[in-house]
Order: sequence, then C-alpha cells, then structure tokens
Amino acid sequence: MSGELPFGLPHNLDYRGGRLRILDQTLLPREERYVEATDLETVAGAIGALRVRGAPAIGIAVGYGLCVALADFLRREPGASLGAARSELVRVRELLAATRPTAVNLPAALARLERVEAEVCADASLDVPGLLAAIEVAARELHLEEADCCKKIAAAGLALLPEEATLLTHCNAGPLATGGIGTALGIILRGHEQGRRFEVYVDETRPLLQGARLTAWELGKAGVPFRLIPDGAAASLILSGKVDAVIVGADRVAANGDTANKVGTLPLALACGRTAVPFYVAAPLSSFDPDTARGADIQIEERAAEEVTHFAGQLVAPESAPGYNPAFDVTPGELVTAFLTERGALYPPYRFR
Amino acid sequence: MSGELPFGLPHNLDYRGGRLRILDQTLLPREERYVEATDLETVAGAIGALRVRGAPAIGIAVGYGLCVALADFLRREPGASLGAARSELVRVRELLAATRPTAVNLPAALARLERVEAEVCADASLDVPGLLAAIEVAARELHLEEADCCKKIAAAGLALLPEEATLLTHCNAGPLATGGIGTALGIILRGHEQGRRFEVYVDETRPLLQGARLTAWELGKAGVPFRLIPDGAAASLILSGKVDAVIVGADRVAANGDTANKVGTLPLALACGRTAVPFYVAAPLSSFDPDTARGADIQIEERAAEEVTHFAGQLVAPESAPGYNPAFDVTPGELVTAFLTERGALYPPYRFR
Repeated sequence: MSGELPFGLPHNLDYRGGRLRILDQTLLPREERYVEATDLETVAGAIGALRVRGAPAIGIAVGYGLCVALADFLRREPGASLGAARSELVRVRELLAATRPTAVNLPAALARLERVEAEVCADASLDVPGLLAAIEVAARELHLEEADCCKKIAAAGLALLPEEATLLTHCNAGPLATGGIGTALGIILRGHEQGRRFEVYVDETRPLLQGARLTAWELGKAGVPFRLIPDGAAASLILSGKVDAVIVGADRVAANGDTANKVGTLPLALACGRTAVPFYVAAPLSSFDPDTARGADIQIEERAAEEVTHFAGQLVAPESAPGYNPAFDVTPGELVTAFLTERGALYPPYRFR
Repeated sequence: MSGELPFGLPHNLDYRGGRLRILDQTLLPREERYVEATDLETVAGAIGALRVRGAPAIGIAVGYGLCVALADFLRREPGASLGAARSELVRVRELLAATRPTAVNLPAALARLERVEAEVCADASLDVPGLLAAIEVAARELHLEEADCCKKIAAAGLALLPEEATLLTHCNAGPLATGGIGTALGIILRGHEQGRRFEVYVDETRPLLQGARLTAWELGKAGVPFRLIPDGAAASLILSGKVDAVIVGADRVAANGDTANKVGTLPLALACGRTAVPFYVAAPLSSFDPDTARGADIQIEERAAEEVTHFAGQLVAPESAPGYNPAFDVTPGELVTAFLTERGALYPPYRFR
C-alpha cells in the first residue's frame, strides 16, 4: 500500500506476506474483482493479460512478483539453499522480463531488485527468508517512490495549468496505471481536489478501451466532469480551440525525448503541433530510458489482431479479416512541450542523463 | 441500377416502380439483408439510421426517396391534382433534408430534382404520373452520373499511384457509399482489377466501425490484401514510411478546399503533413460546395453519445458516462495533396466554381 487514494479510489496492487492482490482491470468498469496471486505464473499472467497495466504499475507489479515467486519457492522448498533461491530468481526475472516489451519500468525494476539482491547476498550469513525480507523492503520502497513521484508530478503539472482548463487525455495514466494518484490523471485529480475547475475529454483508446473503461471510471468516481470521445475526434477538438492542454503518460522516453505511449498518442501531438495547445507528457523518471537513443530503437509490442477484429468476444469484421495491432506509438520528442516529472517540468533540449 | 459491380459486390440501392431496395449496411458484414422501402418514412429512416450512408449514396437515395414518396402519394390519392402532388413534394423535401446535415450531396440532389420538377411542370398538360416519370428519369440519371464519376475518379487516382503501393483509408468510400465502384475505394478496386499490387491498411473507424464492417468486407470480397488497424495506429504507420499514400472520401468540400469527412480523417492528414506521404481526397464534384467558404462553416453532425459509450450494443464505459460524438471532422485544405475528381486531379490553389 502507498497511503490512501482520494475519492475512494481503490489500490491496484496490494502486497502482503507472499500474496499480491491485483485489481483486475480487464473487468472494469463492470466489476471490481481482485486476483490473489501467490505464485509467479499468476503475476506474470496478470501482467501479460493487462489485468495490471501502465508503465509505473508494471514496474511495481514486477517488484512484488519477485517477492511472490520467492515466497512461493520458500514454501515449496523450505530447506533450499541461498544459491538455489538465487537460481530461482534468475528464472523468475527471465519470465517476468518476457511479459511485456515496451515499458522501461519493467526491466528497470528487475535491475534495481537484482542490485539489492547482490548487495544483501554479500553478507555470508544471509538465509533465504532474509533475502525475501530484503527484496520485500526494496519492492515496497519502489512502490512508495512511485507514489511519491505521482504527487510531485501533479505539482509540476498544476504549476503550468490555469485555474480553469479543458484537458484531453488518452488511455489511462491514473491510479490504476501507477502506484499512487497517477501521472497525467494525477495532475487532474489533484487539481480537482484543490478546487480547480477542470473538464476532461477522454479518448476511448481503442482497441482495449482503457479510456472508456478505466479513465472514465476513475474520473467518474472522483467527480471530475468528463466526456468520452472516439479517438478520431481528438484532433478536431484540439484544432478547434476547445482544448487548453493535452496530457498523457509514457511507457518509455528515449534519450532524445521520443516517447512511446499507448497507440493513438502521436495524432494528439501532431494536432497540438499545428496549434498553440501544449502537449505534456507526465511520467516519472523511471519511465525515461537514457540507454535508448531515439524512438526508432524502442521495441513496440504487437498484440493479437483479435483485439481489433473482435469486441467482447464478438466478431466486428468479416470472418478471418487480418489485423495489425501495435500497442504503442512513438511521438517525436520535438512535439513534446514539456515532460512533467518528479523533478519538475523538463523542456527541450532534454537532458535525461 | 448502374451496371454490374466487379467482384460480385452487391448494389446498395436499387429502385423500380415506386420501390427502393436498400442494402442495410448496419447489419454488415454479418448479414446481407435488404430494406424494401415503399414509403417516405422508410427511406428517411434508413438514411437517418445509416442503413445507407456515404455522401454520394445519400444523394442518390434522396433522389429515389422523392420517387418512392410520390409513387406512394399516387397510390394513396390516385385522383390528386398536380398542385396537391407538388405540395406533397415540398413536405417530402423538408423531411429528407432533415435526415443528415453534413453531406452536401443531400441538399444538392434535392435542389436538382426540384429544378426538374419546375421545368416539367411548366408544361400545363402534365399530370401526376407524368411528374413521377420525369422525377424517376432524373433520379436515375443522378445515379448513373455518380457511377460514371466513380470510374473517372478511379482513373484519376490510378494515374497518380505507383504499380505497387501500400495505401491507407478511413471509413468507407466504396461501392456501399456511392452509386458505383466507389471513390477512394474505387481507385483501389479498379487498380486491383487491372493487376496492380495494392495492399491496404483499413482504419476500423470508430464509433460505427465502417472500416471494419464495410471496407474490410468489400476488400475481402474483391480479394485485395488488407489489414484492419485501430484508428490510432494510422499516424505511426504513416510516419514510419510504411504507407505510400492515404486516400479518403469526402462528405463536403468547402470552396477553399477544407474537407469534412468521417471523424478521424484529420489526424491522417496531419501525419501526412509531417512527411512526403500524399493525402488524397477522392470525391465527385457533387460533394464540393462552392457556397461554403471554409470548413468552419460546415455543419458537423453530432450523433448520440451511446455510439461511443457502447460497443456492439454493449456498455463499455461506466453507467451514464457522458460522451461527445461528432460524426465528421474538417481537414484544412492546405493538407490535401490533391482532390481526385471526375475532372481529374485538382491541386491547390483549388478553384471549385
């Protein structure tokens, strides 16, 4: 847990004693059901199936996933050596690393916890429960840090926005996608809490409708006025002057500012680029990847064509119509007005190292 | 009828003796069912409910709608005077004019048939059956002209495209949307018929999925290789160099080239505007409106929010989530590489009068 969320919003991830409770986002808004994961496969399956999603939340889930896997290992093999446990962790990291390719928070969280493992294992007296305890502390720290980043990102965003504003967002970058109040949506929720008069246009975000299902649900719970739009309607809203700013999250920001985010983000940036409407990317520095020089180097996840050809199990195209379904697109860094981070707003030319 | 369509594609509109047979596009691709309209209300209802859609097809349907209404009037009131029939036509035009606001083909078809009515009624010996016959001839002429335009538009487009090309289109501008082989899709279908190697990315076109349901169906029947994509994926395809040209239809082109077309068209033009990828608008001159100076003067139809909050009849957003659902957007004329018309390609600065 990372403290209470405002407006009665539930936590997406809750870890205690070898058990990770995951709010199943694929069932929202119709059902608020939780997955109780006590083994690695359930955590990895939940990440792959987008039961938990959003770059910061994926990082946190992966941290707790290591804890779940190690606790499970300890149950199954109570007498195992530290070496055996560390071998198991190698396998666990491999499996978690393969769940989703685009968000940098995933490999970053794994690397961070691997460093913790190496550090504590330098102590020759450490046993497996001790290793588990150390990794649990580190995973929880990661979660608390992400929650703290959300607060600071909200402050950075609110410093730039007027008292009254019509905002437009894509996909979901709220509490469900992070460890706290959210990145893009955190700014909006915090502003609403402080009495700012924000109205929000929400892209439905095809194919998986994270905007319609998740962002609309969070804004509705918080009482922020919003209107759901087809993704294709955003550009004309922006060009017609009805939007004061676009704010989105990020899955990976390359060293030059090129930003991978949910597919459909790029057209918003292109529309802002033709106007004076600012295009803000709100993301913790954990989503920045200085080792990736530019957007073209970011691996873009391709998901099943059925997400496009079907809806809720129902075929919406001709039988066996082929589809192409990239989960993300890359917005050129020069189209980003500012990155809103826990260290404040970063303007071009960006220096992320 | 307007001659046979290639690849076994069915006619969307077939008028004979007071009866208009309308292929119900809302049921495609799952069902190929026809509405048999023998009264005005059924025709107007079919247009309003998008059972027939696409600017040229709407114009043709409105022409035949006048015939259906007048034939029905003649059946109900066989002894009515010419004056009574003409009064009825005033009411019919009003009702048809109110079905959909954006496509200029609708008022243009009504105006054209009103001129025919005025001309033939100058003959004092004309009776109501004579008036009906004259309007039927004019409505069929309109249909044949639109079919002929499609052929010429296809030729204009094929003259500009390479032998082998990857194209991207939005919504549906094929046989279903016109009186012939289609505008944007007519180019592709005719090229395929001639042995060109075209591949097509098809925007699914939320909220009503005309791309997934209609364009994919037409391309599939014709055997043109295609892939269905979420609308939000088009911009990154264009920027990544995987698309040789974007071709769309139009619902109304203003005097300065600003083009109203299905919502989600503008982002494609913005993406092309950042690259060397041409953005073509394929439309008959009947979709050009020299009386509308610029895009901002075009009335954009707003449809029910339920089209966005629901998907395939199923609620996908929180209960009572508000939506905003403009059916069209306006692409600035300067982003159009060329208009492909029955008079060939028109380049900026456009002169449409």
